Amino acid sequence: MSVIYDRVALIGLGLIASSMFWAMKRAGLAGEVTGYARSAETRDVAREIGLCDRVCDSAAEACKGADLVVLCVPVGAMEQVACDIAPVLKPGATVSDVGSVKKAVIDAVGPHLPAGVHFVPAHPLAGTEHSGPRSGFAELFDNRWTLIVPQDGSAREAVAKVEALWQGMGAHTEEMDAEHHDLVLAVTSHAPHLIAYTMVGVADDLRRVTDSEVIKYSAAGFRDFTRIAASDPTMWRDVFLNNKDATLEILGRFTEELFALQRAIRTGDGEHLHAYFTRTRAIRRSIIEAGQDTDAPDFGRGKRDG
Amino acid sequence: MSVIYDRVALIGLGLIASSMFWAMKRAGLAGEVTGYARSAETRDVAREIGLCDRVCDSAAEACKGADLVVLCVPVGAMEQVACDIAPVLKPGATVSDVGSVKKAVIDAVGPHLPAGVHFVPAHPLAGTEHSGPRSGFAELFDNRWTLIVPQDGSAREAVAKVEALWQGMGAHTEEMDAEHHDLVLAVTSHAPHLIAYTMVGVADDLRRVTDSEVIKYSAAGFRDFTRIAASDPTMWRDVFLNNKDATLEILGRFTEELFALQRAIRTGDGEHLHAYFTRTRAIRRSIIEAGQDTDAPDFGRGKRDG
Repeated sequence: MSVIYDRVALIGLGLIASSMFWAMKRAGLAGEVTGYARSAETRDVAREIGLCDRVCDSAAEACKGADLVVLCVPVGAMEQVACDIAPVLKPGATVSDVGSVKKAVIDAVGPHLPAGVHFVPAHPLAGTEHSGPRSGFAELFDNRWTLIVPQDGSAREAVAKVEALWQGMGAHTEEMDAEHHDLVLAVTSHAPHLIAYTMVGVADDLRRVTDSEVIKYSAAGFRDFTRIAASDPTMWRDVFLNNKDATLEILGRFTEELFALQRAIRTGDGEHLHAYFTRTRAIRRSIIEAGQDTDAPDFGRGKRDG
Repeated sequence: MSVIYDRVALIGLGLIASSMFWAMKRAGLAGEVTGYARSAETRDVAREIGLCDRVCDSAAEACKGADLVVLCVPVGAMEQVACDIAPVLKPGATVSDVGSVKKAVIDAVGPHLPAGVHFVPAHPLAGTEHSGPRSGFAELFDNRWTLIVPQDGSAREAVAKVEALWQGMGAHTEEMDAEHHDLVLAVTSHAPHLIAYTMVGVADDLRRVTDSEVIKYSAAGFRDFTRIAASDPTMWRDVFLNNKDATLEILGRFTEELFALQRAIRTGDGEHLHAYFTRTRAIRRSIIEAGQDTDAPDFGRGKRDG
């Protein structure tokens, strides 16, 4: 693969940025990659493990001369970073991000970017329960989707280059508008995360069942929830605060359905339960057929770095 | 390992029974293993793949002369099976089961067993999203817990043999009373399953997000829920109908907490969300430290038959 950008700057050096770095290096997509993280400790780790060709001590320094700047910080920190880097952005440069919500990020970042800079928000649908600079790996985006949310006035060429970068890192890409993105993600990611966090919290609270029992006997079901509920707290706080409306809408629907199933349990309506569980099983099959998971016991992850 | 039972009968030939068969064979724990399934198709598959030394055409035939009978049918089918086999049970034989709820199974099965037969209910905390005779594998129980629920009047020797069998199949064992078992499982398994079923159903219902979007973009979170929500519908219908009180209690607690988090989102209380998510992350660490999951990306499943 050939170089797409001569100079890329990654702002924020967690799971996504570090995976992007290794994926860009794997495919030779970028000339020099600079990086910046707010925490000195993170910058030290990055230097130690060779994450980024050059780790800078300010966001502005990292962005100076960059052809592409990717904001990889929690959604709530995007606006401040945009303010910090706006003065140094090169005319014709592209700014992108990897935030899990799009409308709030666009509202927070867009107004600060100077004319002549292209803004192409993006969201890779990939992650693990781990965070920080050491958690990244080149294969994270392979065969996963990255949603691209072009803005009115984004030059087509700038959008096409961002898509080419993600494809070069292994992802499929699709364009979507911000509002629809936020609704789709509320269903497929944000509401499930809040629900998992809630269930794990309930288990922890319940004094009639000891913590050690919850931990020892956490078979399928709860154990999967704990994995989801171990994701980065700051990132997820910002997701919920910034995708408030769609998340609350889905949670409202969820509560309605849950009450209906609870009533079926209470009244002994086995037919209702069986029909419901049969329908959800069919959805699982569709996901496997779509290649977004496997039905092997290791979920197709055996090839990764475990 | 040496033979623990000369004759074992497995009634019901799904994921758990077939895994038990392969695990007993792996360690040489049983002389002859007979099997029975209500469906002729399942019996044919069992004969084809060599599941059980002898597949019988009635439960009574399979149980004749058995030293240990293990009921591996859905919880709602246990009572009928107990009635069918009671007349042929050998004096001194042990009857066990693998049901996910214990109080209801004990109430359903116990009264039908003749005097002189030992009843030692058990519950292996292991499973996958798959079901049926082809889905079993010898390693399913390795390093997992099996809870043993001895009854008043169970001979200690009979209990000890059931525990030895499970340990021989790779499991850790612990004794627990039926009511506490049902509460612990409501927290760690039953409520999480109902919640996952609900969320997957909501996604399927939501017409503003297409099915194909839900399927394509089912990143971490929803994808894990669909795996949980793909478990056997009949088994789970019976679990909820037979562990009604504990499941409804936990779901009540869950709804309370969910409403509190929803309010924190609505009012923008980021501190509350962050503190909650930090606490649930700590629980995940405890589970990994307890050896009931790994933090490798493949969840330690790489060694299995995927």
